[in-house]
Amino acid sequence: MFKVNDNYQKLPGSYLFSTIAKKVSAFQAANPEKTLIRLGIGDVTQPLAPAIIDAMHNAVTEMGNAETFHGYAPDLGYEFLRTAIADNDYKARGCDISADEIFVSDGAKSDSGNIQEIFSVDNRIAVCDPVYPVYVDSNVMAGRTGTYDPKTEMWSNVIYMPCTKENNFVPEFPKENPDIIYLCLPNNPTGTTITKDQLQEWVNYANKIGAVIIYDGAYEAYISEDNVAHSIYECEGARTCAIELKSFSKNAGFTGVRLGYAVVPKDLKCGDVSLHQMWARRHGTKFNGAPYIVQRAGEAVYSEAGKAQLKEQVAYYMKNAAAIKGGLQDAGFEVFGGVNAPYIWLKTPDQMTSWEFFDYLLEKANVVGTPGSGFGPSGEGYFRLTAFGTYENTLAALERIKAL
Amino acid sequence: MFKVNDNYQKLPGSYLFSTIAKKVSAFQAANPEKTLIRLGIGDVTQPLAPAIIDAMHNAVTEMGNAETFHGYAPDLGYEFLRTAIADNDYKARGCDISADEIFVSDGAKSDSGNIQEIFSVDNRIAVCDPVYPVYVDSNVMAGRTGTYDPKTEMWSNVIYMPCTKENNFVPEFPKENPDIIYLCLPNNPTGTTITKDQLQEWVNYANKIGAVIIYDGAYEAYISEDNVAHSIYECEGARTCAIELKSFSKNAGFTGVRLGYAVVPKDLKCGDVSLHQMWARRHGTKFNGAPYIVQRAGEAVYSEAGKAQLKEQVAYYMKNAAAIKGGLQDAGFEVFGGVNAPYIWLKTPDQMTSWEFFDYLLEKANVVGTPGSGFGPSGEGYFRLTAFGTYENTLAALERIKAL
Repeated sequence: MFKVNDNYQKLPGSYLFSTIAKKVSAFQAANPEKTLIRLGIGDVTQPLAPAIIDAMHNAVTEMGNAETFHGYAPDLGYEFLRTAIADNDYKARGCDISADEIFVSDGAKSDSGNIQEIFSVDNRIAVCDPVYPVYVDSNVMAGRTGTYDPKTEMWSNVIYMPCTKENNFVPEFPKENPDIIYLCLPNNPTGTTITKDQLQEWVNYANKIGAVIIYDGAYEAYISEDNVAHSIYECEGARTCAIELKSFSKNAGFTGVRLGYAVVPKDLKCGDVSLHQMWARRHGTKFNGAPYIVQRAGEAVYSEAGKAQLKEQVAYYMKNAAAIKGGLQDAGFEVFGGVNAPYIWLKTPDQMTSWEFFDYLLEKANVVGTPGSGFGPSGEGYFRLTAFGTYENTLAALERIKAL
Repeated sequence: MFKVNDNYQKLPGSYLFSTIAKKVSAFQAANPEKTLIRLGIGDVTQPLAPAIIDAMHNAVTEMGNAETFHGYAPDLGYEFLRTAIADNDYKARGCDISADEIFVSDGAKSDSGNIQEIFSVDNRIAVCDPVYPVYVDSNVMAGRTGTYDPKTEMWSNVIYMPCTKENNFVPEFPKENPDIIYLCLPNNPTGTTITKDQLQEWVNYANKIGAVIIYDGAYEAYISEDNVAHSIYECEGARTCAIELKSFSKNAGFTGVRLGYAVVPKDLKCGDVSLHQMWARRHGTKFNGAPYIVQRAGEAVYSEAGKAQLKEQVAYYMKNAAAIKGGLQDAGFEVFGGVNAPYIWLKTPDQMTSWEFFDYLLEKANVVGTPGSGFGPSGEGYFRLTAFGTYENTLAALERIKAL
């Protein structure tokens, strides 16, 4: 008689964004006349840039001709894309990362969820709190997190590193040594980040205690301050302790296109065992490459035209971020983030819980945000709004919130 | 100090097709003047059908306009695709499968590798021998397979069901009860299959012993005989014991497009636990949907034009299969498969091992095939050729082999 993976049964409730989607559809069904403004899920709204559209049309045409048709992609991604990534995201920033240390994937969510597979189930993870739920959930599924306490909403075998206004959203080194440290910087959901010097301290710490850092840099394109690292490999020693995950979803609007990559440096080892080789084996066994058309779209992100168009797109969203931040501050809210990331993190008013504020905003203003507590216990009493809406909707949402 | 997943170290050698790719590049580098014909990896060569190309161009154009742009896809796939699948692949065949039991993915390789995650590590798997290597390898990585014996090339905790010419490639019920049974039918690599009545016996057996069948139907489109099931759900009782995995790679040439789906019926349960819910949770947590453009391409597979064009494509490859089968038989080879699948399985001549014959064919005929032993111990002494080449190359390869 077959048995299931019991760890799944330990997961409380459903995936955060599925829950929100269900609540929103229920509200919409009950109130068909209301026009909702969605600043909840971190989904983009601007169309793909013309340079990317052109590249995709060309690639589609290639797929229709026998001479230029492309079947299975190379395991780790096409050379043209890996080279573009290595040149633009690493070499241009003085980071020592080569094309064959880059693994092209169908997105950072897959990589974030799958990367834990190559580690022992005995390893102990540390996460910023609040944080993107996939890190913890995927470790729950693997049986790495111990037992769940519904009162504290914490797992017994997860090290939480609170990031709140009290510590200026800068995580502190945990009291107990973790084996795997997840850092998402600039952070989702708080929209805050740390300086390059502070990140260097994390790299030093990880090397000292023999931990590996899973560095999620999905929001890197939104960094506006000079003293913030665009890659963890800007820090000395990161090649021996860090895996970096990157996404094309936020910098190029690929949420519905699906493309990302993981960097696993060849210097990252556990004794004699190369994590690069392990990840290559994982990729080769359970993944068959990102679509050719999508990899060509990724290449276009690094073309001159693509870069210029995407710079404008990022600026568009950051104008929204500034509008939300300023508008909410004017309305008396306590607001964080929004400078190096497209997320605004606000303190809920009147001691409301995060979900109370979610319902309040949905019902009274017909604005959808994301409850901070969905990202971890230290997110309770906070709320996330994204800058990924249209400018018009963003201003309209602000007016509705101010009118409350 | 972090530790790695030690199970990876148990894997002998690299993934089969990576090994072949390396051998072939080494040969090509040493013999740049030789023109290789590749009938090894099961990769298609015909371009995408016009109906699919049109659908993809349209979808790309949509992605370039704000009004028609698509961001994150629904967790389980777009309704338009799931409905087309349910109607065409199931309802039209009298199978009771609804659209919300279908989970759209980026391909059957991912699904084949990931599906084991929702089962306990204590479960014991049974596989046909020889078989597609991903089933065993992904279970090795999860720690489900015991120890490897390099002499027999078998894992202590895997039940092997030999499929050889001695039993006419029909697996027998194992002596010990398995918990999870992988069936790939029509079979990769042997190109053989079993009748619907024989499949019904497997469904009865699984229901009787409480096992779950992972049914890989990637080659379904190539079935030409009437007494062969196109879906396991044509068998009575399959809803309580079977998960079906399907691919668009072989029927529509999507090896470089990446699309597949898994069917997890709501009746499939372990006690009170719904496997449908577990897979939904897995999908929601670790996957962000197949690209919109690719899902529109998948929809076009079921359009009238798409169906007609793909029927021709399948016929093209099956013409190759018939040519290979007939040609090799004429040349005195013992040959199997090729009737309900695009694979030809041949007995190596002169007691050669599979890898000896691989090297022999590569060096003497400059033809790339796949060594049978790479698919499991009972594949030793066999060799796989695929019908996915062009007709011209297929005939040329045959001439070269005959000339040996």
